[in-house]
Amino acid sequence: MYTLSANQYGKGEIHLVRIYRDSPRHEIRDLTVTTALRGDFADAYLTGDQSKVLPTDTQKNTAFAFAKTHGEGAVEDYAIALARHFVESDPFATEADVDVLVDAWDRVVVDGAPHDFTWVRRGPERRTVGVVASGSGAEARVEVTGGVVDLVILKSTGSEFHGFHKDAYTTLGETDDRILATSLDVKWVFGAVPADWDAAFDAARTAMVSTFATWHSLALQQTLWQMGQAVLDAVPSISTVTLKAPNKHHFLYDFTRFTVEPPIPNENEVFHADDRPYGMIEATVSR
Amino acid sequence: MYTLSANQYGKGEIHLVRIYRDSPRHEIRDLTVTTALRGDFADAYLTGDQSKVLPTDTQKNTAFAFAKTHGEGAVEDYAIALARHFVESDPFATEADVDVLVDAWDRVVVDGAPHDFTWVRRGPERRTVGVVASGSGAEARVEVTGGVVDLVILKSTGSEFHGFHKDAYTTLGETDDRILATSLDVKWVFGAVPADWDAAFDAARTAMVSTFATWHSLALQQTLWQMGQAVLDAVPSISTVTLKAPNKHHFLYDFTRFTVEPPIPNENEVFHADDRPYGMIEATVSR
Amino acid sequence: MYTLSANQYGKGEIHLVRIYRDSPRHEIRDLTVTTALRGDFADAYLTGDQSKVLPTDTQKNTAFAFAKTHGEGAVEDYAIALARHFVESDPFATEADVDVLVDAWDRVVVDGAPHDFTWVRRGPERRTVGVVASGSGAEARVEVTGGVVDLVILKSTGSEFHGFHKDAYTTLGETDDRILATSLDVKWVFGAVPADWDAAFDAARTAMVSTFATWHSLALQQTLWQMGQAVLDAVPSISTVTLKAPNKHHFLYDFTRFTVEPPIPNENEVFHADDRPYGMIEATVSR
Amino acid sequence: MYTLSANQYGKGEIHLVRIYRDSPRHEIRDLTVTTALRGDFADAYLTGDQSKVLPTDTQKNTAFAFAKTHGEGAVEDYAIALARHFVESDPFATEADVDVLVDAWDRVVVDGAPHDFTWVRRGPERRTVGVVASGSGAEARVEVTGGVVDLVILKSTGSEFHGFHKDAYTTLGETDDRILATSLDVKWVFGAVPADWDAAFDAARTAMVSTFATWHSLALQQTLWQMGQAVLDAVPSISTVTLKAPNKHHFLYDFTRFTVEPPIPNENEVFHADDRPYGMIEATVSR
Repeated sequence: MYTLSANQYGKGEIHLVRIYRDSPRHEIRDLTVTTALRGDFADAYLTGDQSKVLPTDTQKNTAFAFAKTHGEGAVEDYAIALARHFVESDPFATEADVDVLVDAWDRVVVDGAPHDFTWVRRGPERRTVGVVASGSGAEARVEVTGGVVDLVILKSTGSEFHGFHKDAYTTLGETDDRILATSLDVKWVFGAVPADWDAAFDAARTAMVSTFATWHSLALQQTLWQMGQAVLDAVPSISTVTLKAPNKHHFLYDFTRFTVEPPIPNENEVFHADDRPYGMIEATVSR
Repeated sequence: MYTLSANQYGKGEIHLVRIYRDSPRHEIRDLTVTTALRGDFADAYLTGDQSKVLPTDTQKNTAFAFAKTHGEGAVEDYAIALARHFVESDPFATEADVDVLVDAWDRVVVDGAPHDFTWVRRGPERRTVGVVASGSGAEARVEVTGGVVDLVILKSTGSEFHGFHKDAYTTLGETDDRILATSLDVKWVFGAVPADWDAAFDAARTAMVSTFATWHSLALQQTLWQMGQAVLDAVPSISTVTLKAPNKHHFLYDFTRFTVEPPIPNENEVFHADDRPYGMIEATVSR
Repeated sequence: MYTLSANQYGKGEIHLVRIYRDSPRHEIRDLTVTTALRGDFADAYLTGDQSKVLPTDTQKNTAFAFAKTHGEGAVEDYAIALARHFVESDPFATEADVDVLVDAWDRVVVDGAPHDFTWVRRGPERRTVGVVASGSGAEARVEVTGGVVDLVILKSTGSEFHGFHKDAYTTLGETDDRILATSLDVKWVFGAVPADWDAAFDAARTAMVSTFATWHSLALQQTLWQMGQAVLDAVPSISTVTLKAPNKHHFLYDFTRFTVEPPIPNENEVFHADDRPYGMIEATVSR
Repeated sequence: MYTLSANQYGKGEIHLVRIYRDSPRHEIRDLTVTTALRGDFADAYLTGDQSKVLPTDTQKNTAFAFAKTHGEGAVEDYAIALARHFVESDPFATEADVDVLVDAWDRVVVDGAPHDFTWVRRGPERRTVGVVASGSGAEARVEVTGGVVDLVILKSTGSEFHGFHKDAYTTLGETDDRILATSLDVKWVFGAVPADWDAAFDAARTAMVSTFATWHSLALQQTLWQMGQAVLDAVPSISTVTLKAPNKHHFLYDFTRFTVEPPIPNENEVFHADDRPYGMIEATVSR
């Protein structure tokens, strides 16, 4: 009578740390991996028959194992290998997602030298990697996305906002100099395989950050459009970039209400950084 | 050279509380509202011209104002009115989203009687309402979704998991009696307007919860399918329901490793409630 | 040259779920347990000698084991047994803390009847239990605290705030009718063992909630003092109660700035629930 | 009948951002300030009389104003000025706390050069400053604490744990090579005023991080003791340091259970980073 439409299952937030210790100078990779399989799994829903269901626990085990067996290249290589493995080895899976959040660690400096095996966590920014694998043989397909979440960036000038549409509920004042701050959540789609996944990420991130800094902004919308273009300029293998940017409001604090003598000026110096609500600007830029 | 594809802008997480105080027995409504507009806004991105952009601050002001002027009916009525307002009054908006998270408050009982104007917050579960409005006149359209997030539910028996597919990475044991626990994130689409929005929500929620309790589960997949069907059975105006359910693992704690005498039995009595990773099962059930 | 002063070690946030299944009607207890030991542990710090250190992993194991062997009475009985165990069985521990956060679950109602083995999580409020055990034999001591965290409570009238001290930085207006809302974090000390731990908790909580509702408040300070007294009135075995209460501001939204016709009134009906900053009022009330 | 013992009130989490823009190269300071006053405030509790209560809203206003008028020196200078202001200008306050969390921002690099007015947020680590001011004139006192929270640090070798005390509940294996990871929450007390607050912080932080890296650890306890000593060595004006360090467990993943051929080795390379529970080690080191 009813229809089972879209369905998938997998393991969320497998937090794995891989240490590379073949030389005295160790390396660290800190990944939070989420897997999902789609395919011939309707029986598990309709009748409870699990005979085609590879447990999410097994998906987890495999994510850990592949960190050893397929962990030498870029994170993208690991994710592709894991997603391809599910599609190729599981007779019931036709499509597999592997999504990775990458936590960054900075090597500690001791007496002026980077330490061999100690790091401090750097955040809140995290790089993201997404892979969708399907088919096999000549039909094998892999789609790769990259991006970053929680990249919090702020400029203290070089941002205006005026000339906007007004209605009977509009009370906002116009400004030609404000703080512009956001927490970027950006995802880009690779239309081709870049020569170097890490270099592609670095180039895309640098393009975004530099553009945010140097573009004189008439609105966060305009800044996003410029950032998206800059990513496409910087990384030819990226075909599309989607940016979601909350406008994290910094309100100039009103000192004129105080009766202190002499009055305290506030020429864009002291701001209240508010939590909620926030503007939310979204844009997709494509070749 | 490049194309601005999808774009939208709005205000996120406007937290408003509406008190109804026309009688000594007050009522409370606690809403977190997010708005988004789509339409003729490309200039804001491409040239920085804001003349067609109704500020997100104005969207916020309007959300508060409508809590007074259109806050008497169901939350759905409020959200529809707000979304329609944006589409009809803003010459540049062709489509408006209004999404609402509803926090629940329980009236305090004092000396056996419900108090007139004091409540305690109940959570973590929150009802959701989503509206997408577009067009006008004969073309006017409104799509309404409902749902619930963070509905944490657990059954201590009546759940099995066995007979699953195995490969070289599989280590999970089979079980015919386990804890089944999840934190439901469910969204349903209304294909028609129900007679009573609140009654529709209650019926859908009751159907889900009752089915989770009474259906003897061979897998979380099967339980979701049954829950989705139960929602469609219970609320004829709902056309589709999508369920996302993390499998919040409760691992039986292994006491056999202890050398305590006498040994401590653990017949499905003491569990470790783990945080991450978790299974993640998703399904959409449609008429 | 330097001195090791205070030191302790233990296990944080052991999340254990205990199911009681001796009859068809199961019971659930959901505890997050933190342990800490103090005693003759300086060597572990000073020389790295661990021979007196019972691993935190063992403390965790014991917390799970005691959920089976000592889990029949109140949570306080469990926590006391666990803390006494550490002090009595570990030759190097002179004092043990056991702190417990208790998550509440409501039994699901199916067709009008409470279900035997299915529950929905109720929050955000959590009951707390704290035990400090020391000494042995005639010197054996146990101190027990109780309390609640994240008890979010709101009254929509019956609260004033005026006549306060002002200086040159004061801009706040006076009000004789406002929303009063807080998220209570309360801890009480038992000076004696009550007849029934659960009844004591219920009586203390009821006293607090009822007083918050019924006391006409001239300030959150005054309400806290009344609530503290009410707890001491209601539970003779409680000797001291400490209340920490953020003043969760609900600001009346200013509609007078809009140019809508007719103007929209806002007579204490529509509020912005702000996140930060918040007032923070603290008080300890003792016999 | 009952006694009002300890009491205080203030404003929590005032999030203020101060921009220094006297030259084209701006500077940013991002502070979350919490204030609390103690003094002659019993009437507010006992009778509701607010005539001695400076509103928390005024405390907030003053925190913003002082960011302009007293924001040129170190954060410690700002916090001292604000705390002294409350004690000296408010006739009813005898003691004032000002606690500050400092969020760090890294200047963006564009084309190899640090940008004048754009930064990216660095976390999760935050510097802390605490001031308690009391008295006036000859009795004027100021106590200053410093510290850091959420300093997440990890070493991939150079850490052992063995030879510990065992009982019937002990199952933990011994190891002579493990990951040691923690999230430091450290507070130090200044016994004297250092020549330079920022230099003192940097020296203390460097001492902690270097010691964590270079000290071959027999237990987290031992590492903390060494770190505490290193702070006291590095900053003569610090009299006491208190360290709280969760042992963030990284469990070696067991690949021996897989039936993959050839077997996959795991020689301290692939770990599961668990969330909860965690060890919690605490120590205070004093001169």
